[in-house]
Amino acid sequence: MRALLVVAHPLKASFAKAAAARIRARLEERGVEVDVIDLYADGFDPRLSADERADYFAQPYDASRVADYVDRLRRADRLVFIFPQWWFNMPAILKGFLDRAFAPGVAFDHAPGGGLIPRLTNIAAIFVVTSTGAPWWATRLYMGDPVRRQLSRGVKAMVSPKARFRMLTLHDMDRMTEARAESFLRQLDRAFRHF
Amino acid sequence: MRALLVVAHPLKASFAKAAAARIRARLEERGVEVDVIDLYADGFDPRLSADERADYFAQPYDASRVADYVDRLRRADRLVFIFPQWWFNMPAILKGFLDRAFAPGVAFDHAPGGGLIPRLTNIAAIFVVTSTGAPWWATRLYMGDPVRRQLSRGVKAMVSPKARFRMLTLHDMDRMTEARAESFLRQLDRAFRHF
Repeated sequence: MRALLVVAHPLKASFAKAAAARIRARLEERGVEVDVIDLYADGFDPRLSADERADYFAQPYDASRVADYVDRLRRADRLVFIFPQWWFNMPAILKGFLDRAFAPGVAFDHAPGGGLIPRLTNIAAIFVVTSTGAPWWATRLYMGDPVRRQLSRGVKAMVSPKARFRMLTLHDMDRMTEARAESFLRQLDRAFRHF
Repeated sequence: MRALLVVAHPLKASFAKAAAARIRARLEERGVEVDVIDLYADGFDPRLSADERADYFAQPYDASRVADYVDRLRRADRLVFIFPQWWFNMPAILKGFLDRAFAPGVAFDHAPGGGLIPRLTNIAAIFVVTSTGAPWWATRLYMGDPVRRQLSRGVKAMVSPKARFRMLTLHDMDRMTEARAESFLRQLDRAFRHF
């Protein structure tokens, strides 16, 4: 089994990095091969370029600008996104990872009559780990959890519709206590013994 | 009256640019002063930096890295976002405009007891114009329109809760006809005679 972790946070001393380290440890204990894409460490440019956009419907699409990421996405059978929610969604650097690396011919194909054909069906499970300053009721009840909808109903459905999907969010980050953070990390421990 | 248009598309020959031009013309006909931020033309870097994130809770927050945008946001009383939906949300370059220019002390203040105090209450109305390859029922009924939720319930509520909000989306972009695109532009004509 091979898990690809995609992490988006500019600071080493961040909860996202701590969560990523914890998840990696749990997976490696089980003998799962773990690959980590640290987008900030890579200096990844999240802006889909004019050339990329102009060629978006070309057959075949030239994904050579993100070839390394494409290769790692294709070899993964577990995908884990780890990021803080800023403005109720992922950081720009991760949004751009979707815009650029989840490219035509990689994540999906344009079907001849319109619509999309999923192409990352090697991914059997997607796990999303996030944190947010907002309380849970604001995120879930009032906002309707937009990033969960976008990733589970949108992205997953388009790239690997049969993949299992799970998301864990640590709320109220701005009033965090060590005990609550540690309790969330233990929740990750339990989850990633089976994921 | 002063309207700030924020446009996110890498190509000049794009529907977003055509829509922005159309909106600008309608507003200028009415004597509205129009300011346009073309994020791609500006070469805007959407990645919130390590320094910015480390200082996010500093009082006061140093927004000098995005001082020009901050100034233009503060002088606007109408805000218009124009962008294509990629993966059911805004392009990374626009997400990063929120992450970086909607900064503490600019868009909101951290309240002493937790929570946020809106700071862009100069903005009396927000209009969002988007396009998507997805059909309307997929976006609205199945996805629950995540980008609308994020912008109206999230961003607006945090920066200018009393602002009016409206969003128009051109669906089925991948099967667009000239007649349907023109009909949408006429819908914008009507909307921006009053906005």
